[in-house]
Amino acid sequence: MTYAAPLADMRFALREIAGLAGVAALPGYENATEDMVDAVLEEAARLAGNGLAPLNRVGDKQGARLENGMVRTPDGFAAMYRQFVEGGWNSLPFDPAFGGQGMPWLLATAVQEMWQSANMGFGLVLLLNQGAIDAIAHHGSDAQKAAYLPKMISGDWTGTMNLTEPQAGSDLAQVRTRAVKDGDAYKVTGQKIFITYGDHDMAENIVHLVLARLPDAPAGVRGISLFIVPKFHLNENGTPGKRNDVRCASLEHKLGIHASPTCVMAFGDDGGATGFLVGEEGRGLSYMFTMMNNARLSVGVQGLAIAERAYQQALAFARGRVQSKADSSPDPKAVAIVHHPDVRRMLMTMRSQIEAMRALGYYGAAQIDRSLREPDEATRKAAQMRVDLLIPLIKAWCTDLGNEIASLGVQIHGGMGFVEETGAAQHLRDARILPIYEGTNGIQARDLVQRKIARDGGEAMRAMIAEMRALDAELATAPGDDLAAIRAALTTGADALDDSTAWVAATVGKDIGAVLAGSVPYLRLAATVLGGWLLAKSALVVQRAMGAREGDPAFNESKLIVARFYAETVLPQGVALAGPMRAAGRTAMALPEERL
Amino acid sequence: MTYAAPLADMRFALREIAGLAGVAALPGYENATEDMVDAVLEEAARLAGNGLAPLNRVGDKQGARLENGMVRTPDGFAAMYRQFVEGGWNSLPFDPAFGGQGMPWLLATAVQEMWQSANMGFGLVLLLNQGAIDAIAHHGSDAQKAAYLPKMISGDWTGTMNLTEPQAGSDLAQVRTRAVKDGDAYKVTGQKIFITYGDHDMAENIVHLVLARLPDAPAGVRGISLFIVPKFHLNENGTPGKRNDVRCASLEHKLGIHASPTCVMAFGDDGGATGFLVGEEGRGLSYMFTMMNNARLSVGVQGLAIAERAYQQALAFARGRVQSKADSSPDPKAVAIVHHPDVRRMLMTMRSQIEAMRALGYYGAAQIDRSLREPDEATRKAAQMRVDLLIPLIKAWCTDLGNEIASLGVQIHGGMGFVEETGAAQHLRDARILPIYEGTNGIQARDLVQRKIARDGGEAMRAMIAEMRALDAELATAPGDDLAAIRAALTTGADALDDSTAWVAATVGKDIGAVLAGSVPYLRLAATVLGGWLLAKSALVVQRAMGAREGDPAFNESKLIVARFYAETVLPQGVALAGPMRAAGRTAMALPEERL
Repeated sequence: MTYAAPLADMRFALREIAGLAGVAALPGYENATEDMVDAVLEEAARLAGNGLAPLNRVGDKQGARLENGMVRTPDGFAAMYRQFVEGGWNSLPFDPAFGGQGMPWLLATAVQEMWQSANMGFGLVLLLNQGAIDAIAHHGSDAQKAAYLPKMISGDWTGTMNLTEPQAGSDLAQVRTRAVKDGDAYKVTGQKIFITYGDHDMAENIVHLVLARLPDAPAGVRGISLFIVPKFHLNENGTPGKRNDVRCASLEHKLGIHASPTCVMAFGDDGGATGFLVGEEGRGLSYMFTMMNNARLSVGVQGLAIAERAYQQALAFARGRVQSKADSSPDPKAVAIVHHPDVRRMLMTMRSQIEAMRALGYYGAAQIDRSLREPDEATRKAAQMRVDLLIPLIKAWCTDLGNEIASLGVQIHGGMGFVEETGAAQHLRDARILPIYEGTNGIQARDLVQRKIARDGGEAMRAMIAEMRALDAELATAPGDDLAAIRAALTTGADALDDSTAWVAATVGKDIGAVLAGSVPYLRLAATVLGGWLLAKSALVVQRAMGAREGDPAFNESKLIVARFYAETVLPQGVALAGPMRAAGRTAMALPEERL
Repeated sequence: MTYAAPLADMRFALREIAGLAGVAALPGYENATEDMVDAVLEEAARLAGNGLAPLNRVGDKQGARLENGMVRTPDGFAAMYRQFVEGGWNSLPFDPAFGGQGMPWLLATAVQEMWQSANMGFGLVLLLNQGAIDAIAHHGSDAQKAAYLPKMISGDWTGTMNLTEPQAGSDLAQVRTRAVKDGDAYKVTGQKIFITYGDHDMAENIVHLVLARLPDAPAGVRGISLFIVPKFHLNENGTPGKRNDVRCASLEHKLGIHASPTCVMAFGDDGGATGFLVGEEGRGLSYMFTMMNNARLSVGVQGLAIAERAYQQALAFARGRVQSKADSSPDPKAVAIVHHPDVRRMLMTMRSQIEAMRALGYYGAAQIDRSLREPDEATRKAAQMRVDLLIPLIKAWCTDLGNEIASLGVQIHGGMGFVEETGAAQHLRDARILPIYEGTNGIQARDLVQRKIARDGGEAMRAMIAEMRALDAELATAPGDDLAAIRAALTTGADALDDSTAWVAATVGKDIGAVLAGSVPYLRLAATVLGGWLLAKSALVVQRAMGAREGDPAFNESKLIVARFYAETVLPQGVALAGPMRAAGRTAMALPEERL
């Protein structure tokens, strides 16, 4: 049930895959010195392992409760949150002009991984606040920024995202919450559901960002505006004053993330909640899109994080659980199950995919930093194109894998995995929300094929495939079986991704139904191959280090073995989706709906 | 949340795939007339849908409770169980000499599917009782049979299996529970864990079958004997009398199947529970093996059953949930999500695999009947070999798919799937035990390669592959695209299964570690291909019927589409495991344990 941040693996992914040094050298990231980065990682690891992780089970057991109209978080959460505020952990990637520390998103992403591994139910408040800060920073007025950002960046106040309504889930065009102009402000009335940390007892104020519709607004997405609705009105001096007309009406009883209150929010039961328009009328949904990349990256990182936690727990169990003799030895004495080949296969399946997810997730975060900070506009734009392409892949793939890996974690525990006290089942329950929220994975796949591939005919994907193919020469001349095996698998993977991308690009305009039916297989194929690419890069890095007798030989050798395991056992399963991707459209819709 | 037994699909699998008519014609199954079979199916469907299914959610919410040392089942369970006893549902496949109805296991399997779809938490008591009856029927003395079987077959008493101890899970050689001779009986002392329905309030007596060790027994599996330990001693007249020294000490708090009490059982806290030796000393584990096939088939059927339930629920939701416009139409009006291609792909993925599981599960049940009843000994033996081979495949594949399909069911519900009230999450929680109990799926894969393939060098598997290849000529001459696509996929599948089986057979004696590391991929490959084979058979059946203008054209066309969807999108993913199967052994164990 403990968690220790995998600092060596994280540093490797930050430096060797995501290019931390290059990111830290970008203008605006002057604070991200090597010493500072190391100190942040180590301090975060301590807080995650010693502070946050032990609260994970109590959070699950107690859950958030609604008492007299107020949401109470589990024992220990509010005190822990104070530590976060005092330690400045909310402010890491934000603008120093509003009290932020101006650190790269890349570093914030590694730290985010730790929080989410340690305690996803707690970590969600940080994640939602980050999204709300992002929205106000990008689209708020100067007065709004001055009023809200410093307190939100410090974490004294937290933010929420109020999008979903009972009839408006994936389809936000159906939002009905109303906002009526009232002097300088608006009166907001309506009901929002699935509002994460919509109310809680850890912060002085809660800043709700709410999608609502003006009375004369056009139907559909162009009629939706974004409003700031604070839980407490601000006094003249900016401190929280009287209660606004917004309340948590009830909490959902969920499969997992029990500690995280999922609220039904009632706006305007007493005549209207006071809200303040963000930016222009009718642009609410487009504002949401601008911060979606960061939010979706964070959810992908939650998938990685829960997988890492599940892996650590399963490994500890497998080392301690003694059961049956070893097959490789005549000794009849029972051994720890970690020595049984099928258990080892499960552990390696978990670990190799975790390393691939971390590589891709951090790589994506570095591209976000580049898209924001590269001095050259064309370079920034290219980075932005790559970010846009990577985000649905990272979100969907890492969250699907988070579930699969948490389930493997349960399996390794055998019967004990099904017993709640063990804690393995909690990871599975917690993970199950990830493929659903922040855009279901089906929506991610749609975004990938219908927007990201369609808009440039697959150009941004081909640019990555070209980089992948450029590794081939290096892999060809590297010594040893391992790199030869990795090279062969990567070539097959690159071919499959190339062909499949060409099919999507060629078909999306002609037969959108077929492409959508194949979109989830395509996404999985693409992400699996990209993960293989980055692990091949890792393998080359450690192979070179081993040749030069640099670094820790054991660490280097491990990276090589893990990359080969992935190349030979995981990658082919991704490649095999090329056929199903093309075929799905033929029969998926063939059965009339009434005969399903 | 409702369930309607898919009678048309069940009848099709019974008749066209499992060969119900041939099974019913076997000696001893004279009672299984066509009318009788139909009446049983229809009556069971009614009871499952109207009686059992509505109790599924209350069972989950209330769970079983331990009160004053007695286990209480959820509201309505005891009354429902009385209906089962009065309806004679426990007795379906058992010997008429002891009050059974002498029906084929094939029919009992279809009925079992209904109970487990409707309410797995309830269904477990039936399943455990079936196993205990089987054990006593095969290995008990005449006196034991006379004393216990009539009441267990009627269901007035239920049976349990007491195998697991804290240190003895998959490794039963480590059983420590002791049995000391005491006159004609034994005094049993020890603790058993994970005992399903180890205590409850639905039956007059509970007959525990307990693995224990005599004081002078040799170490390991040969020192383990099997005992009958009734909860209540039997009076002279055979009725339950005084309490025996066995108690439920506590209940596990589990991820799912909350209604099913999972007991820690304490034997002999007051000096020793009175137990009666079954068969000979030291043969307890081998007795367990003789009934393992039926028990493991039943658990595989649970996987199928929960998948069917999840499918029905997801389909109903998808038909009712209106969200976003259809891609295929310019109409901006939002449509039910069942019309969105990715949702349809998920539904077809569920359905096609459900049909494949049902085909393979029922086919396996028919082979059990043949292994018991075929007049010719060689035919019986061949059927037995096929049963032995199929059982680990059915158990592991259907239970893995049960989880995957229940998870797809949650996904189709979107955010509502994560909310417990919806019920979709319960199926996922309930399903998660299936790959673990009755031998983990890793143990199934080990059984498959190390026993079932190794013992005949893959002969029994090759016999099935030969039947698969024999379909090719028929598929080649059948009209239409669909059968051509199915034929191509099946050929690839048969080749992959053939090659992979040859590799397992050739390698198992030389490098057991490599074979075990690849055993789970091999199992999945084999079962996926066998499922494809039986769906190809289905396709031929309906194609012929369509040619002859027989049967319901809509039903027939549906079967064809579903078989093609499976062949083109599911089968290739199984085939793709051939490489990973061979490769896993190379790197799975390469990382020293301390570096995992």
